Amino acid sequence: MELSEARGKLVAIGGGDISEGDAPLLKEFVKLARGARARVVVMTVATDDPQAAAAQYKDAFKRLGVDDVKAVDVSKRADALKPDSLEAIEHATGLFFTGGDQLHITSMIGGTEMQALMHRRYERGLVIGGTSAGAAMMSNSMIVGGDGDDNPKVGAVEIGPGMDLVIGALIDTHFSQRGRFGRLLTAVAHYPQDMGIGIDEETALIVNKNEFEVAGKGAVTVIDGGAMTYTSLPYAEAGDGLSLYGVSVHVLAAGSRFDLANRRPIEAEEKRKSAKSSEDGGKPDVKKPRSRRAGR
Amino acid sequence: MELSEARGKLVAIGGGDISEGDAPLLKEFVKLARGARARVVVMTVATDDPQAAAAQYKDAFKRLGVDDVKAVDVSKRADALKPDSLEAIEHATGLFFTGGDQLHITSMIGGTEMQALMHRRYERGLVIGGTSAGAAMMSNSMIVGGDGDDNPKVGAVEIGPGMDLVIGALIDTHFSQRGRFGRLLTAVAHYPQDMGIGIDEETALIVNKNEFEVAGKGAVTVIDGGAMTYTSLPYAEAGDGLSLYGVSVHVLAAGSRFDLANRRPIEAEEKRKSAKSSEDGGKPDVKKPRSRRAGR
Repeated sequence: MELSEARGKLVAIGGGDISEGDAPLLKEFVKLARGARARVVVMTVATDDPQAAAAQYKDAFKRLGVDDVKAVDVSKRADALKPDSLEAIEHATGLFFTGGDQLHITSMIGGTEMQALMHRRYERGLVIGGTSAGAAMMSNSMIVGGDGDDNPKVGAVEIGPGMDLVIGALIDTHFSQRGRFGRLLTAVAHYPQDMGIGIDEETALIVNKNEFEVAGKGAVTVIDGGAMTYTSLPYAEAGDGLSLYGVSVHVLAAGSRFDLANRRPIEAEEKRKSAKSSEDGGKPDVKKPRSRRAGR
Repeated sequence: MELSEARGKLVAIGGGDISEGDAPLLKEFVKLARGARARVVVMTVATDDPQAAAAQYKDAFKRLGVDDVKAVDVSKRADALKPDSLEAIEHATGLFFTGGDQLHITSMIGGTEMQALMHRRYERGLVIGGTSAGAAMMSNSMIVGGDGDDNPKVGAVEIGPGMDLVIGALIDTHFSQRGRFGRLLTAVAHYPQDMGIGIDEETALIVNKNEFEVAGKGAVTVIDGGAMTYTSLPYAEAGDGLSLYGVSVHVLAAGSRFDLANRRPIEAEEKRKSAKSSEDGGKPDVKKPRSRRAGR
């Protein structure tokens, strides 16, 4: 996998009610983007109702103490060249992509000056967040569509190019809630060079260079097809059920960390060690073993 | 894993509309149980409506050419000792368990002469089929209940003893259709010595000694926790999201075979070879490689 040297961070959220109440995942995004001094731009390009989405997220970010919140919409490709939109992105500390359709994001922004600017700013420290479509677009390979609650089938998932913020990956969202294990595994069968990363609702993966950490209520599921010993894909026709042997799966609950460069979770043992030996008194993020639960 | 020496066979079906039309999976069951000369007993112990279930399956088996079809119900434990019910099972070539609640099966039959008789007859060649609850009850560890469409959580799946026909396994049904990857993985996290076997609707696994083959529309997904490098279970509390690293997953479409004793799929390469070298002219069950599909 290509090593990322970007100084920016990503907050990829799997959808769900994330702007209500305490909005803990948006709070995490704001914290990374300089807290109360953040300059946040809400990117509504994915949604059909940009005004409602802008109002919803402006309200949430203001509740979290951010005064400087703007919204930028792109409803046709020409909008991606507007000077005041580019100016807002140039000065932002955090860019947040709402949900909707990820294909709108790549179709409207792909190859424009806005995309180039996003990448330049990300290299230099910009925090980019997004939920649902706003998270799905972050990987180099992007799931465009395909049914959940089905077994892996040849060609059952539409895949296209994403926005190249996470390289070597295929991000899916609403993962457990919409029964998308088969869908993401289908994508991995077609692109085994990329890792499938399934993010649950109200759950985030926070990318910092070549590592991510999980936050929120659910889990992040990583499907690694690299070790597959057999795939029936080359012998099968469109719509056929796929046989895939020896796929490696990691389930990561909140606090877990993953090494994207080496495609492996950072073991809890190591976490405990590094927490102990850390100089800044960081609290250990793994619970201590406890006595056997009754009634298991 | 314990080696099975039973001469009987199992047909475990993942639920769905299996008695309608051509009923291909019931046809497979009938074929194994001596075809038109089969003596089939429909076991309605799992269901709340034994008369309707008996009528539905009697009708289906008669359509498949079986004249000798009886129904046996067990609605209280005393029913499992009834001489005419035991007599029917004694003379059956095939026993078929309808859907319903798997806990009814184990609670009503567990430890009775009826269970002992089933096992004795299975050792000597009886074919035992079942769908949904009738399949879930076949493994030594049995999923009693738990939600689909959720990420793995400590204690979120209720597990109890099954009917010990497949040893070293935990069978789940309606697998892809009800988004049960997280549910079965939760079960495997609690019982990593057993393999999780998730059967899709209108899909069967056909067990013959220490091997099974997949038939039908969907897939069988095997979740092997044996190779897990880390589990957060000992450090977590009830309801906490689980972290599980390095779980091995195999997806098996129709025609795939799996070696239960060695916990590994039987590679298609070997299938092709054995098909070629077989003396009885068995047709190869793997498609030949073909030229690249357009528009992938």
